[in-house]
Amino acid sequence: MPLPQEFHDIAARVNNWGRWGAADETGTLNLITDQVVREAVRTVRTGRRIPLALPLHQDGVQTGAIPGRINPLHTMTAVNQQIFGPGTVATSDDTVTMGLQAATHWDGLAHVSHSGRLYNNRPAGSVTAHGGAGVLGIEKAAPIASRGVLLDVARAHGAEQLPGGYAITPEDLDTAEELAGTAVRAGDIVLVRTGQLRHYLAGDRQAYAFPSPGLSLRTPEWFHARDVAAVANDTLTFEIFPPEIEDLWLPVHALHLVEMGMPQGQNWNLEQLSEVCAAERRWTFFLAAMAEPFVGATGTPVAPVAIL
Amino acid sequence: MPLPQEFHDIAARVNNWGRWGAADETGTLNLITDQVVREAVRTVRTGRRIPLALPLHQDGVQTGAIPGRINPLHTMTAVNQQIFGPGTVATSDDTVTMGLQAATHWDGLAHVSHSGRLYNNRPAGSVTAHGGAGVLGIEKAAPIASRGVLLDVARAHGAEQLPGGYAITPEDLDTAEELAGTAVRAGDIVLVRTGQLRHYLAGDRQAYAFPSPGLSLRTPEWFHARDVAAVANDTLTFEIFPPEIEDLWLPVHALHLVEMGMPQGQNWNLEQLSEVCAAERRWTFFLAAMAEPFVGATGTPVAPVAIL
Amino acid sequence: MPLPQEFHDIAARVNNWGRWGAADETGTLNLITDQVVREAVRTVRTGRRIPLALPLHQDGVQTGAIPGRINPLHTMTAVNQQIFGPGTVATSDDTVTMGLQAATHWDGLAHVSHSGRLYNNRPAGSVTAHGGAGVLGIEKAAPIASRGVLLDVARAHGAEQLPGGYAITPEDLDTAEELAGTAVRAGDIVLVRTGQLRHYLAGDRQAYAFPSPGLSLRTPEWFHARDVAAVANDTLTFEIFPPEIEDLWLPVHALHLVEMGMPQGQNWNLEQLSEVCAAERRWTFFLAAMAEPFVGATGTPVAPVAIL
Amino acid sequence: MPLPQEFHDIAARVNNWGRWGAADETGTLNLITDQVVREAVRTVRTGRRIPLALPLHQDGVQTGAIPGRINPLHTMTAVNQQIFGPGTVATSDDTVTMGLQAATHWDGLAHVSHSGRLYNNRPAGSVTAHGGAGVLGIEKAAPIASRGVLLDVARAHGAEQLPGGYAITPEDLDTAEELAGTAVRAGDIVLVRTGQLRHYLAGDRQAYAFPSPGLSLRTPEWFHARDVAAVANDTLTFEIFPPEIEDLWLPVHALHLVEMGMPQGQNWNLEQLSEVCAAERRWTFFLAAMAEPFVGATGTPVAPVAIL
Repeated sequence: MPLPQEFHDIAARVNNWGRWGAADETGTLNLITDQVVREAVRTVRTGRRIPLALPLHQDGVQTGAIPGRINPLHTMTAVNQQIFGPGTVATSDDTVTMGLQAATHWDGLAHVSHSGRLYNNRPAGSVTAHGGAGVLGIEKAAPIASRGVLLDVARAHGAEQLPGGYAITPEDLDTAEELAGTAVRAGDIVLVRTGQLRHYLAGDRQAYAFPSPGLSLRTPEWFHARDVAAVANDTLTFEIFPPEIEDLWLPVHALHLVEMGMPQGQNWNLEQLSEVCAAERRWTFFLAAMAEPFVGATGTPVAPVAIL
Repeated sequence: MPLPQEFHDIAARVNNWGRWGAADETGTLNLITDQVVREAVRTVRTGRRIPLALPLHQDGVQTGAIPGRINPLHTMTAVNQQIFGPGTVATSDDTVTMGLQAATHWDGLAHVSHSGRLYNNRPAGSVTAHGGAGVLGIEKAAPIASRGVLLDVARAHGAEQLPGGYAITPEDLDTAEELAGTAVRAGDIVLVRTGQLRHYLAGDRQAYAFPSPGLSLRTPEWFHARDVAAVANDTLTFEIFPPEIEDLWLPVHALHLVEMGMPQGQNWNLEQLSEVCAAERRWTFFLAAMAEPFVGATGTPVAPVAIL
Repeated sequence: MPLPQEFHDIAARVNNWGRWGAADETGTLNLITDQVVREAVRTVRTGRRIPLALPLHQDGVQTGAIPGRINPLHTMTAVNQQIFGPGTVATSDDTVTMGLQAATHWDGLAHVSHSGRLYNNRPAGSVTAHGGAGVLGIEKAAPIASRGVLLDVARAHGAEQLPGGYAITPEDLDTAEELAGTAVRAGDIVLVRTGQLRHYLAGDRQAYAFPSPGLSLRTPEWFHARDVAAVANDTLTFEIFPPEIEDLWLPVHALHLVEMGMPQGQNWNLEQLSEVCAAERRWTFFLAAMAEPFVGATGTPVAPVAIL
Repeated sequence: MPLPQEFHDIAARVNNWGRWGAADETGTLNLITDQVVREAVRTVRTGRRIPLALPLHQDGVQTGAIPGRINPLHTMTAVNQQIFGPGTVATSDDTVTMGLQAATHWDGLAHVSHSGRLYNNRPAGSVTAHGGAGVLGIEKAAPIASRGVLLDVARAHGAEQLPGGYAITPEDLDTAEELAGTAVRAGDIVLVRTGQLRHYLAGDRQAYAFPSPGLSLRTPEWFHARDVAAVANDTLTFEIFPPEIEDLWLPVHALHLVEMGMPQGQNWNLEQLSEVCAAERRWTFFLAAMAEPFVGATGTPVAPVAIL
């Protein structure tokens, strides 16, 4: 069934096509200017570094529901091998097979299309089985390092975690922004905490997957109004799942990736960060979250670090 | 044949076992203190970000000489799939299979053993085929973000690139440090540029691989004296290859990883960084180069960014 | 804990080390002589071919309990790609990643060791992470095609399937042989049906995996006495699981693979074959079940065909 | 550019669409009837088994020219692991990643389309990145075991191998058939030997790949006239490469797979078979060459065995 009018109305309001030129493949990462970065590093006070990636292993967050998105399979190709003969230095080597969106990751701009189009009016057919993303591949992403702002919606609710299926609203973001004591601004990377990851950390992958709290259809405009560079959170689905509107699946993905050209992060571990921010009473930091430049990829594992 | 006395003498001088406790699995990354990070961010002046990773694809730097260390194989598992029916939002997904040390990467502390031992006197047998690195896995690495210093040895030589098989000496590092106009200090991440990667960038993988300029047996003491946190360069082998001393293979690996507990980076693209540093007449910057936390892994692809 | 005396006593009785020479890597497959094959083809009467492999896909029999033994992941690398330009012939290509013992498979002789030894007194250390099985790899297996005999233990019990945890005894094999109306003889490949696969075929992987009926500690002597070339069945674990004797894990594996040098097959689909054999009142056929010659592998997927 | 009229003329003459019903996904494998199999086993005289697959390893026949079609990467996931504690039985496990058409293989019917169509008028779009071959996947292949006939074109030419770029003609097949002393008949599997594999066996992958002798545009009618079930040979490209007619790429693939619905085999090792057939003066045998039932796959590795 076709996408509803409500979706198209919002799409028109948040659309960034052509904003950075007809050839642009960078989207909202353009908003991370050198000036933004200069100011971002000034948020660092203690120098404490908090990693935000989940461990990569077979016991990852994937349940098997999404075909092909396998949890990382790590295999050894050498174990203390004395390549050059007995008595010499020994080396161990390894390989991995994994879904690029299986763990803590960025969705790249080629991950989603709607109505036959990718971001910046590129044809959906630019993504093929043989070459992957012929345009908008994750290798085109500008370096992702900017000011990070934690919008701790769960904490703002006074909850350890939001209920499954809770739809995060613009008002929730306002409240969390108020808690953060800062105004979200152009070029920021916003981390939205739901606490949903606690299910996974407690050993329950199924509860983590579904039902999930997440961003609602009304939040892309909030991010667009502030010219955010990227948004990440601590859920598998990013947006509320199952969806708010029957048969309108993944609308937030479509608005962020296709209309705005904004990367999204999923399965980020914000638990320690939440504790530290609350303890220090500040919710901004320098954030580095570089994409691995897989050529033609629609996403990438990422090992983000928040530096406070 | 056994390792020569010269190796053992140097090993004794650079050894860090027990320095951070008998249980330590972090090694020289302990040297990146909060204080170091606070100072590191102050090196940022323009906010310009320079990525240092090579693209990840089948045309990577591996020649096939090291069994199992395959260049990244990227495959699609969905292309504009309308999961929820015709007319809906469409998604594309992908997977990768790759050697963890195949591209721009960090060698983790479990990558090398000698004389039956890993860093901090751990038994080499802690690495197994089923579990990988039971100790010292890359997932144990502390967040890698600190001050970066480019020691542009090629440029200090007035050359585009060092000759194949050139052994970089402590004196070369001194000269490059002088060019850099800074004193390398505790917690720094040192990037040593040879220019060797220009072979690969020009399309010649074989010339890139062999013979290679690289760090010589006498350089680990230089890094140890300055308490460097990590060292990376723009070669496949990291150290001079073939080796300086017949039948003494990979001695620098063994000294850095086993004796010092210091991660090493290989296949870093330092070409653009070299140009910008020379143009701006400064060779220090903030460097974020986070390990992907593969559990039990002996190395990790990395997407480093230098922020000037 | 050490293996019990009972195990060692049986081991001594079934041991084939040295029987085909000190250099032998073929084991009981030596028993499939040209003469055996000539006679085997004479069992064909109708020419009907019954395939015995399960489909290879992500919904395979593996539950995740055995790390690394992943169900087959099939990915496309080209979809109707017109390599040579528009209007030309288009090709689709694909890859697979899978555990070699994940689906319908043969265990090769290097799959199991005990007391530091593989079949024919080879050191267990011949299997390494870098080279795999340096001896006894599956690529050394002689072509596996011989007379097949279905021992339908479930049917002989008058049951659709044996109960979970049922220990198949030599007497069970006698009874099933009687039902089959033939004497098992040298060079035969024996297929033992438990019906356990019906759990998987009905969608219950967990029930299929555990508890499982299977061959008991007393059956290897039965196979040894008849000089069987190989044995396969329709279970995940091959032998009864959990084991009959506390803390004596996988004794049948050790007796077959290490002592006898006899390949074992698991996850074979014997359901259709069982029906046809019963309908035709004959339980012998020509069986081709070639190993894929993966170099250094400890097992192989197999697509067996019974020809009646 | 469009396919030439000559191609379409031949296509019309060899087309099998609808011959076995509109729903058929089996193609010429339908020609292997029970009767054919009964007669095929009667060709066995000595019982000697000759395997026809190349070893599966990283040093396989792929040169890297076809993206994604990687040579088999074999990795260990356990090496003599004592799962249940010290002193117990130890197991070794492994995985593989490989292109399904990388080694000795069958092309399945979904491997090629032309003019938007697969065999039996199925839409090319039935092959997708997420599901692979929705129709005509290799798991649909009927069991492949029939009479094999070796047409040793190289030997019939009195040559060790045909020159690179030699186009095998119907007359060549006639001559080889005469040498074989048998009439190729319905349901046969024909093995065409060029000797080209000798390049690979001598260590020269590039010479093996290109230029290659192979079947010419005029041979599909020869196979069609005899109602052959399948054809395999000892080349990388199957048909002459580069092609006979400029810009007409892979026409034999299109005629066999799309028009006739006939599987093709490539990279088969026919060297030993050639010797034995010549020595015994007979070129027919029983051939089992089962497809591994990868769901949705466009091809499959195969371990064929000729039984003489």
